[in-house]
Amino acid sequence: MSIVIKNVLLDDERKDVFIESNRFSKIESSLKNHFESNNSSRIIDGSNFAILPAFYNMHTHSAMALMRAYADDLELHTWLEDHIWPLEAKLDEETVYHGARLAILEMIKSGTVFFNDMYFFPHGTARAADELGIRADIAPVLIDGMDPSRTEEMITYARSTIDSNHMYSSRVKFAVSPHAIYTVSPETLVQSFLLSKSKNLPFQIHVSETETEVKNSLRDFDLRPVQYLDSLGILAPNVTLIHCVHLDERDKQILLERGVTIAHCPVSNMKLTSGRFDYHTLQDMNIPLTLGTDGACSNNNLSMLDEMKFAALRAKSDSGDPTVAPAQEIFDMATINGAKAAGLDAGIIQEGKLADCILVNLDHPTLVPSGHLISNMVYSASPECIDTVICDGNILMHGRKVNNEDEIIKGANEAYLDLVGK
Amino acid sequence: MSIVIKNVLLDDERKDVFIESNRFSKIESSLKNHFESNNSSRIIDGSNFAILPAFYNMHTHSAMALMRAYADDLELHTWLEDHIWPLEAKLDEETVYHGARLAILEMIKSGTVFFNDMYFFPHGTARAADELGIRADIAPVLIDGMDPSRTEEMITYARSTIDSNHMYSSRVKFAVSPHAIYTVSPETLVQSFLLSKSKNLPFQIHVSETETEVKNSLRDFDLRPVQYLDSLGILAPNVTLIHCVHLDERDKQILLERGVTIAHCPVSNMKLTSGRFDYHTLQDMNIPLTLGTDGACSNNNLSMLDEMKFAALRAKSDSGDPTVAPAQEIFDMATINGAKAAGLDAGIIQEGKLADCILVNLDHPTLVPSGHLISNMVYSASPECIDTVICDGNILMHGRKVNNEDEIIKGANEAYLDLVGK
Repeated sequence: MSIVIKNVLLDDERKDVFIESNRFSKIESSLKNHFESNNSSRIIDGSNFAILPAFYNMHTHSAMALMRAYADDLELHTWLEDHIWPLEAKLDEETVYHGARLAILEMIKSGTVFFNDMYFFPHGTARAADELGIRADIAPVLIDGMDPSRTEEMITYARSTIDSNHMYSSRVKFAVSPHAIYTVSPETLVQSFLLSKSKNLPFQIHVSETETEVKNSLRDFDLRPVQYLDSLGILAPNVTLIHCVHLDERDKQILLERGVTIAHCPVSNMKLTSGRFDYHTLQDMNIPLTLGTDGACSNNNLSMLDEMKFAALRAKSDSGDPTVAPAQEIFDMATINGAKAAGLDAGIIQEGKLADCILVNLDHPTLVPSGHLISNMVYSASPECIDTVICDGNILMHGRKVNNEDEIIKGANEAYLDLVGK
Repeated sequence: MSIVIKNVLLDDERKDVFIESNRFSKIESSLKNHFESNNSSRIIDGSNFAILPAFYNMHTHSAMALMRAYADDLELHTWLEDHIWPLEAKLDEETVYHGARLAILEMIKSGTVFFNDMYFFPHGTARAADELGIRADIAPVLIDGMDPSRTEEMITYARSTIDSNHMYSSRVKFAVSPHAIYTVSPETLVQSFLLSKSKNLPFQIHVSETETEVKNSLRDFDLRPVQYLDSLGILAPNVTLIHCVHLDERDKQILLERGVTIAHCPVSNMKLTSGRFDYHTLQDMNIPLTLGTDGACSNNNLSMLDEMKFAALRAKSDSGDPTVAPAQEIFDMATINGAKAAGLDAGIIQEGKLADCILVNLDHPTLVPSGHLISNMVYSASPECIDTVICDGNILMHGRKVNNEDEIIKGANEAYLDLVGK
């Protein structure tokens, strides 16, 4: 199907935007002749809308949406050991499928067209993403409990998951994610990285999230986490490091030299009191910065709008400089920087690019006055401002309606009751 | 008109809620007989909803909604002197009316039923509040440029505003607000406070927002701001102090002893890099804490949902303790604490209390699973979760529709263009 969005605000001008297959094929002041001769196009009146890039959520554990608010306001170890881990032990592929559907519904409704996932039962998440039409890189989380005798088991698991990728649309890709340096042996870290290189796939790992992690890394490996990973030869341009809250100057220099991307998760960092992300320096060094919501347990929503506002305000307040993290820079982090890191020819509304976009309602009170749209998106907007979401040339939401919403909610509620009742 | 909300979730039980005039008159498991004999009641099916207290926004400059995103990401003095003040110089009552309508529309759509306002042309704001059905304490801002020869002019202005309160519904009250200790002479501070006491009205002032304010107060008055106000005899239970970011131990003790309320504005404090509010200590001391959005220029929306999430996460991350500022405590700050500070017999869903409430949609993805509703409201909800807003027994929003929304947006857009075009 082709789509014509008529008379929509793009930057400061009204345009007609023509989407053919999965790309923006024409963007012009008037495409009248073009679309009048093309009866099969779906036509959207864009008069009340602006068109903007959609969001790329660079780190989440989507199925954890089922555990939203399950155990808030607790100390980290109580939270994990007494609440989250016991619940996670009861998960199966069907539960993960329903949790991921809930998460993806929420992501679509807040303008997200891609998410980078790390979790158990990746087929549950992949099936949900495939059905709902969103893009995703989905990694089975690798945790060997620091036991190198389990490396082969881990790599076999990762490889067999990857080898089943043909079951899903090309929008959905399996990826490689060992959990962290304190849960995965160096053998598995190295082998999983080599697997990602040989398959040309993204590689993600949580790094330097807490002070304790850094302290233990120095104790166990005589190196800080980033330097430990570098000593294993693991840092490369296909790598996204999640969190990177605790970095010294040498760590930052290594990140720059190796060309890795950072997935910054400001809400999670604040909620779990992980520490202060050095946005100002990392941005000045031109290290690629992207944004992630993390899982719903530590956020508790999956809205990139919240994430942008927190990223900007935390960077300002931490640096004591209100000019730090201006709106456009933060918006780019949530859009084009994410798309680039995900290897997608997207993140900008331009002829030839992949047709990922949102239409925002310029009459929504929080976007009025509408003269400074990017500022409004970063500091003021809520999901309700987003009317339409298009991903890969398909309309995933229009008029804030997503297909099968009631059934997704029903499935999630049932899966949750099933999970806590077990 | 009376209202019956049938089968709505209240805490963990399904109830029928009967509102007569402006109070909750009956809350029972089944009011069948009661409302079937009462044909004139408006009946709302509450099956998909939970009923919760609405929000009380304890500090804003509502008409500044017209300047939303007008000048973001700037250093404080550039922001004020080059952008905001020149624009404010062009305001008139009609512009303020349209700005306040936009702000009130946004507040209603995010569940707020009361706001504490400090701004120019208070009749513009009062007229807007009166028409749209929200509660408000509205203070003409007093600024004499530290010139005591202008005290009489200031007090006359405040008194004449207050004396015209009969023009509006009893939901709308004029109040007393000198701007700050660095813009208002001690004479005007004292006289305006005495006016508030003699009229039995709320008194608000910005205090200890920045380090510079504290430094200058020590230089000019040889006292920190709170201690300076105390030396003038101004601190009393009718007083709300806005911001209170920079307090020493003696300041905190004085606030406790004098029984004043604090209006904490975490988003504004982060965006303007004002400093670190000591939530943990102030809460432990049982000093009454309330929440405010501040104006749209320093936020940039007026959603108490955003404000709650920022308050909780900032308190956690500043203290390094994720158990600080649990959801219920933050929710209370935004609801019952605000209602108490505003002198309203409201903020809780209970027979006999004023009928202020919201109905939230339990099927909204960000509230699923719904077992931990207050956590979901603080950490996950967006305005779209709120279906219905009832203020003083009147339905201000239902099905997310507010009366005259299109006309309010149109008026605000025109007023903005008029303002910047002048």
